[in-house]
Amino acid sequence: MNPTMIPWPVPDPEVPAAAHPVLAAATRAAAGAFRAARQRYDRAGLAERVRVGADGTPTMRLDILVDTAIAEVVDAHRVNLLSEEIGVIDNGSAVTLVADPVDGTANAAAGVPLSAFAAALVHDGVPTESLTCWLDTGRCWHAVAGQPTAYRTTGRTALDGAAVSLLRPHPHDPDQAAAWWRVAQRASRIRILSTSCLEAALVAEGSIDGFADAGSQTHRIVDLAAAMVMVPAAGGAVVDAYGRPLEIDTDLHRRWSGVIAATPDLAEELAAAIRGQ
Amino acid sequence: MNPTMIPWPVPDPEVPAAAHPVLAAATRAAAGAFRAARQRYDRAGLAERVRVGADGTPTMRLDILVDTAIAEVVDAHRVNLLSEEIGVIDNGSAVTLVADPVDGTANAAAGVPLSAFAAALVHDGVPTESLTCWLDTGRCWHAVAGQPTAYRTTGRTALDGAAVSLLRPHPHDPDQAAAWWRVAQRASRIRILSTSCLEAALVAEGSIDGFADAGSQTHRIVDLAAAMVMVPAAGGAVVDAYGRPLEIDTDLHRRWSGVIAATPDLAEELAAAIRGQ
Repeated sequence: MNPTMIPWPVPDPEVPAAAHPVLAAATRAAAGAFRAARQRYDRAGLAERVRVGADGTPTMRLDILVDTAIAEVVDAHRVNLLSEEIGVIDNGSAVTLVADPVDGTANAAAGVPLSAFAAALVHDGVPTESLTCWLDTGRCWHAVAGQPTAYRTTGRTALDGAAVSLLRPHPHDPDQAAAWWRVAQRASRIRILSTSCLEAALVAEGSIDGFADAGSQTHRIVDLAAAMVMVPAAGGAVVDAYGRPLEIDTDLHRRWSGVIAATPDLAEELAAAIRGQ
Repeated sequence: MNPTMIPWPVPDPEVPAAAHPVLAAATRAAAGAFRAARQRYDRAGLAERVRVGADGTPTMRLDILVDTAIAEVVDAHRVNLLSEEIGVIDNGSAVTLVADPVDGTANAAAGVPLSAFAAALVHDGVPTESLTCWLDTGRCWHAVAGQPTAYRTTGRTALDGAAVSLLRPHPHDPDQAAAWWRVAQRASRIRILSTSCLEAALVAEGSIDGFADAGSQTHRIVDLAAAMVMVPAAGGAVVDAYGRPLEIDTDLHRRWSGVIAATPDLAEELAAAIRGQ
């Protein structure tokens, strides 16, 4: 075998029976396209920048292939799409699927087994249901706004001593580097898994206390939409480090520094630490 | 269900048929004990510090339970054991199983699905065969010293622009913090997965370029023994950042700053960056 191929299987997603048909179909389509892409392309082929996505950044082939499969699902179900690469598909519906086709694309293309499909259903601008699937294992997290969920955050309120995941640091920007380091100095344990949507799921189920973009303005709304349903349902909070409202907006050039935490208090402590307050 | 229990299943390990019977049995015993511990104890129970291990640090209940299962295997097979918690069992054999019962214990006890069993068989002081099992998925990596392997590192030689995993930073020690930051400034991508043995497997199979303890002297020989077989077999190198020999030693108080890299050149660049040279 070509040693640059990623040899590991992509299992079928364990989609909960209660998931909305659009979320279920999109998750299965994403996993199927992800598997097919891995079987056809090696690491370099998956990572090749083949065009500029709707968010204005160069897009990897893997993202395009998965996003295309999701676009077919929304067309078949006559709902709208807001996704990282394709951008907006308006099928005239009151329902929009807001999707990150491959969260952790760099992991996925390299073979680091931490990548996810994550999506939220949005009704007239309000996220109502989410499904996150760890593509490398098929493990899924599902939540419906306003309904009880099996997930419970740790309940932690204090940053000092917390277990926090962060986006990778940007050492060449002094302000960003300082913000990253302020969080690291107060947490007891720092991880960088490079997959925001899975890290949000770990906050929701109480495996880590929080996850943040420490001021690098990397997050698009597609990176946060699933968490905006799942994490509050589990007792946590999703905010922007600078207090800006998180809005489902078709302008994918808008960026936030997402803070996802076990409690609203911890979210505010994390945000304040990032801002240097 | 108690929301502090970790609900995810622990699959049977996919042990390669060619694995030595002691490695195969130890891996299956570790996975079985890991599964039983998760079914019986919640997160706090798994993480409870129940005694001081052979390496002189407080030991979590989860480590004790898994290490005890491994001890039964070495006794049944009449080989010796060198492991993190129990330390040395001398059954008078020329063969020693050098094992990290639960690599990434903090992950495992919290529910972050990145923990491993990793072990090497050592004949008269020389590691000859390794098996690493990602306990959360059953995925295994197996290598025999001097024999061809399916794993190939990325072959990268330069630190500038590399994808490097690091142990978490220690911001309150200025020298360690500076060493960590020197590596982060030169790499293009930094991850902290908090599981040295899985990160070594990712180097071996070419998913990341390198992994290092950036000068915190955290690694014991049990953390590095499996990598010392697997990574060179795949074209990479395992060294200490300060040039000390990596020796299979029954004194578990000895520590190293392990550097595991796609090539010997990259290992030397990483080690030099850690030392500040």
